[in-house]
Amino acid sequence: MKLGVVILAAGKGTRMRSTLPKVLHPLAGRPLLGHVLDAAVALGAAQVCVVYGHGGAQVPAAFPQSQAVWVEQAERLGTGHAVLQAMPAMAAMDRVLVLYGDVPLIEPETLNRLVDDTAETRLGLLTMELTDPTGYGRIVRDKSNRVLRIVEQKDASTAERAITEVNTGIIVAERACLADWLGRVGNDNVQREYYLTDVIGLAVGDGVAVATCAPESPEEVAGVNDRAQLAQLERHYQHGLAEKLMRDGTSLADPTRIDVRGSLICDQDVFLDVNLICEGRVRIGANCRIGPNCFLKDCTLGVGVEVFANSIIDGATVAAGARIGPFARLRPETEIAEDCHIGNFVEVKKSHIAAGSKVNHLSYIGDAEIGARVNVGAGTITCNYDGAHKHLTQIGDGAFIGSNTALVAPVTVGTGATIGAGSVISRDAPAEKLTLTRARQATIEGWQRPVKSSS
Amino acid sequence: MKLGVVILAAGKGTRMRSTLPKVLHPLAGRPLLGHVLDAAVALGAAQVCVVYGHGGAQVPAAFPQSQAVWVEQAERLGTGHAVLQAMPAMAAMDRVLVLYGDVPLIEPETLNRLVDDTAETRLGLLTMELTDPTGYGRIVRDKSNRVLRIVEQKDASTAERAITEVNTGIIVAERACLADWLGRVGNDNVQREYYLTDVIGLAVGDGVAVATCAPESPEEVAGVNDRAQLAQLERHYQHGLAEKLMRDGTSLADPTRIDVRGSLICDQDVFLDVNLICEGRVRIGANCRIGPNCFLKDCTLGVGVEVFANSIIDGATVAAGARIGPFARLRPETEIAEDCHIGNFVEVKKSHIAAGSKVNHLSYIGDAEIGARVNVGAGTITCNYDGAHKHLTQIGDGAFIGSNTALVAPVTVGTGATIGAGSVISRDAPAEKLTLTRARQATIEGWQRPVKSSS
Amino acid sequence: MKLGVVILAAGKGTRMRSTLPKVLHPLAGRPLLGHVLDAAVALGAAQVCVVYGHGGAQVPAAFPQSQAVWVEQAERLGTGHAVLQAMPAMAAMDRVLVLYGDVPLIEPETLNRLVDDTAETRLGLLTMELTDPTGYGRIVRDKSNRVLRIVEQKDASTAERAITEVNTGIIVAERACLADWLGRVGNDNVQREYYLTDVIGLAVGDGVAVATCAPESPEEVAGVNDRAQLAQLERHYQHGLAEKLMRDGTSLADPTRIDVRGSLICDQDVFLDVNLICEGRVRIGANCRIGPNCFLKDCTLGVGVEVFANSIIDGATVAAGARIGPFARLRPETEIAEDCHIGNFVEVKKSHIAAGSKVNHLSYIGDAEIGARVNVGAGTITCNYDGAHKHLTQIGDGAFIGSNTALVAPVTVGTGATIGAGSVISRDAPAEKLTLTRARQATIEGWQRPVKSSS
Repeated sequence: MKLGVVILAAGKGTRMRSTLPKVLHPLAGRPLLGHVLDAAVALGAAQVCVVYGHGGAQVPAAFPQSQAVWVEQAERLGTGHAVLQAMPAMAAMDRVLVLYGDVPLIEPETLNRLVDDTAETRLGLLTMELTDPTGYGRIVRDKSNRVLRIVEQKDASTAERAITEVNTGIIVAERACLADWLGRVGNDNVQREYYLTDVIGLAVGDGVAVATCAPESPEEVAGVNDRAQLAQLERHYQHGLAEKLMRDGTSLADPTRIDVRGSLICDQDVFLDVNLICEGRVRIGANCRIGPNCFLKDCTLGVGVEVFANSIIDGATVAAGARIGPFARLRPETEIAEDCHIGNFVEVKKSHIAAGSKVNHLSYIGDAEIGARVNVGAGTITCNYDGAHKHLTQIGDGAFIGSNTALVAPVTVGTGATIGAGSVISRDAPAEKLTLTRARQATIEGWQRPVKSSS
Repeated sequence: MKLGVVILAAGKGTRMRSTLPKVLHPLAGRPLLGHVLDAAVALGAAQVCVVYGHGGAQVPAAFPQSQAVWVEQAERLGTGHAVLQAMPAMAAMDRVLVLYGDVPLIEPETLNRLVDDTAETRLGLLTMELTDPTGYGRIVRDKSNRVLRIVEQKDASTAERAITEVNTGIIVAERACLADWLGRVGNDNVQREYYLTDVIGLAVGDGVAVATCAPESPEEVAGVNDRAQLAQLERHYQHGLAEKLMRDGTSLADPTRIDVRGSLICDQDVFLDVNLICEGRVRIGANCRIGPNCFLKDCTLGVGVEVFANSIIDGATVAAGARIGPFARLRPETEIAEDCHIGNFVEVKKSHIAAGSKVNHLSYIGDAEIGARVNVGAGTITCNYDGAHKHLTQIGDGAFIGSNTALVAPVTVGTGATIGAGSVISRDAPAEKLTLTRARQATIEGWQRPVKSSS
Repeated sequence: MKLGVVILAAGKGTRMRSTLPKVLHPLAGRPLLGHVLDAAVALGAAQVCVVYGHGGAQVPAAFPQSQAVWVEQAERLGTGHAVLQAMPAMAAMDRVLVLYGDVPLIEPETLNRLVDDTAETRLGLLTMELTDPTGYGRIVRDKSNRVLRIVEQKDASTAERAITEVNTGIIVAERACLADWLGRVGNDNVQREYYLTDVIGLAVGDGVAVATCAPESPEEVAGVNDRAQLAQLERHYQHGLAEKLMRDGTSLADPTRIDVRGSLICDQDVFLDVNLICEGRVRIGANCRIGPNCFLKDCTLGVGVEVFANSIIDGATVAAGARIGPFARLRPETEIAEDCHIGNFVEVKKSHIAAGSKVNHLSYIGDAEIGARVNVGAGTITCNYDGAHKHLTQIGDGAFIGSNTALVAPVTVGTGATIGAGSVISRDAPAEKLTLTRARQATIEGWQRPVKSSS
């Protein structure tokens, strides 16, 4: 059986009040439509076709890696019309599943169940029980519990309004039947639109038994129409992720204060304090502790790393036993080796720091190769930029850089060298020796410190 | 019709456990009473009179701009007595609306409705349906649904306790009638107090039909008696504000983690990450992104500004395309022009930085005028204070300030000048040339770095 | 009456997915078992015995101060067997109370009530009413409301499953009776375990009237089986603590965003902004304001201290009127006197700073004694470490340290001395005079700044 997936993504999303097409708004750092494309891929769809419209070429351009076929719905004449645009791309499929680009949290497990449970019939429909079904199309069944039709809120009788089973819009159908039904859907309604929902009535009219199936949670089939709904689904997604992390052996100080926008993999016995944000691919080794208000992006932390409060690690690798922060910032292409200490108000960019070295206070390390067991004093600056190019600073194993030193790159400090505090090192400093720049200390007689005028 | 508003604000608020009068405790950065005064103004009241007592002159002193009449209730003899104190100030009014200084979230729309809906009667009363009415005065009505009286919890029969419509305390009345009724309210009760509520019974006794009206939400009429209730209303207020921001086209990472204490205006497609705090008047241009844990106060950000994590902007203006932070702090009287970069661990105070300039790392810029396309190296300090006065640093367009430089103000660095790293610049540096202070780099032979004693 | 307490703490806690024994997982910064030990102490238990097993000696080792008797349950044969191991340690007791190391939030008040209310009977049982009792053992009573037995979920009839009163597992019994019943508990069940619950049936069989008593909240008797449950109890605990703080006169910007892991004592009219974390013993004086995202540990703040956003105070004392932060970090053994200002990107370690002094920007102060009214300029570094030892920096009253100065310790700056900006001070600077190191400022003719190659 070849399954095709059609994703409707042409809507305007007026209530988003945005210049960005609705389906490109991010949830957990990824466009809404991206979540639906992922679900289709997870489902093993043989063919995916996205019907886009509002926002034009911007929409397909946001998914350069996607294998989907992109079909533009030039005139937006309703959901039935939209699916019709996708049918040529489905020609080789046996069945077609219809999803929505603004319904991002649908679970592949639910869709698999829908596809499997309805395999014997020509039309399957995802429906849901709601305590308050107001506004939704109700599923009208006959006495034998067979689906008869879907009645919209505005057309429903009092008895029908009491029905709590509602339509989610997600259907799966035999391709040939779907093509036939779509050809027979009319637009004899106030909006002059072709509704996909009408397919149900046509199928029943043809004597087709409509099978149904339900999602695990209402959020799976919740659509995003405004930013408040988007924020609700974001929180639902994040809570689910937090639950999964905890189940897998990670401790969270507060499961409502974590945001993962990408993938976070934690080994056993990691502790995540409040307000962590992760972006991209983050991997945290066993027994790490991440302090409050940290931001991790595309980084890997080894076993037992401690990241203290208010630190940022972006595009860096930190090896086992290192201590980072508080108030530290590691920038891309940084590698921190085992047992290093990177302390407060320290920025490290595109540098390698070998095992056991310390940069504890108020320093800028950029474009540097620092050896093992080096002590970099407070206020050390690598002057890596000459206004045109970036240059390298190299510091040998066991060197000691006195505080408030400027290292004017390109420059090399030898193994075991010592640099005197407050120096400006613009030529290489030899190994094992003390190198410094130092003006004579002078005391000025008779000098008076300015005083505030009494005016 | 001239509407007068009386605000009762004399209570002690014992359960606040505070030296600050209850009505001066802030909600969203503004005293409780301030919210009620704002509502009265929004209502177009012809006269506002605040009855204060506990805290004395401190209360009116907190609202120097208010047009209200302030009347001290020297003896606190109950709400009826309190309103009576305000009646002379209401002499020219046709109707009088009674509000409470510790009921801060009453909506002007609700009050307008109360005033309009009850225009035909001499007494209007704001009442509310509660699922659990325990503790509230119940609205007793006759078979024709006419209000008969209010019965307090302790005096209510079992049948009366089942009533779910309760008194909010907010009334509007014909001034002349109110004056008459207040004159007839007695204090024949345990507390020996004159209760405003008794006015209802007197009106009914006079054959007056009491009209009623309800607020949109219970929080509108919720009083603050302790700090837990204050925090609940703060959260309710903030959630309402977050909803409004989202409706108007701003994306919030988490609507439960934003605090606006003043006014926040966002143009379209702004993204606000978690834990934002805004104080005073904050204006954010279209397409700005504000990172997590930022604090914005009295500032204006142009189009497309990026503010990275953990930054503080207070009293500054940031023009379009600028990038601020992470870990940056802009202080009052700072102007950052288009496309500037202010980076980590950088403080800027009372300075102008022209377009395209960069201060990327670990710098203090105070009392400075920095031209366009200037590069300020890491660790640069403007030495603006001589112990008595602050002095100006001026840096021309296109200058390059080497890292770890101290600029001893008053001092001028010319256009296109270059300052060598690690310099102390105490005299003007000419345009287009390299200026520096630099001691000779020396290597000391035979020097031994101290070693830890093995004792 | 001598009361003994037995705490069962031998379980593995498989669902925690941890190498740490479950009862050692922290809640509010203290192991679960520590909370239960505290409750036993608060109860005035004459003897406490902990039955441990999984994790072995690690468990008692985590409580070196505890007076408890530690008994290892080598074979884990059920809760009845576990209590039996503790009975020798209870030999001198009159009654025995059984608690659980993974039920951390039990209130001593509840236990006192249980002990008192059941004083007349040989067996008391803590039971609880649940809306949804699924999964719990139900309390079966006879028509006279006497406890008959406990029936487990899997063994319960439909009628029994409708019972909403459930077993919490917490019992108190006459020691001698308990010993007798435990001796008669069998292991004739699927798990081949000896269940403490069976004691109830044995007691009833002996004609003993089982008295019952209920906790105030379900969280008191909630067990921790996985990290999600741990996080739920953490949040419940923190909310309770926030409520108590507010009741006692502290204002919280958001009661859901505070974490206290230890003890926090606030005097009147303290304001705590969002995301505060406290660890250890924290004491905050009246009228202090703590900004957002701060971390306080083992510190004391005097009256009216202001701590601005994103500051860390660990092991320090801050006297009245001082202003700390934003972005400040005070480390252990630091004392900040009255009215000092410690500003942004400043780290202070093991230093005393006397009244009225200011360290406002980008400085590292370590191992220093700073007098009163000293102004420490931006970018000042105490070079306290020579690679082997830490040395002291002493600065006299009224001194002025120019910006970007390195103070090479050991060194003394005299009273009223001034240090020129950008100096490296390696010898003592005399009082009242200007001392500096300064190379001559030179401008280089004909020098060209590097330009980007056009390739």
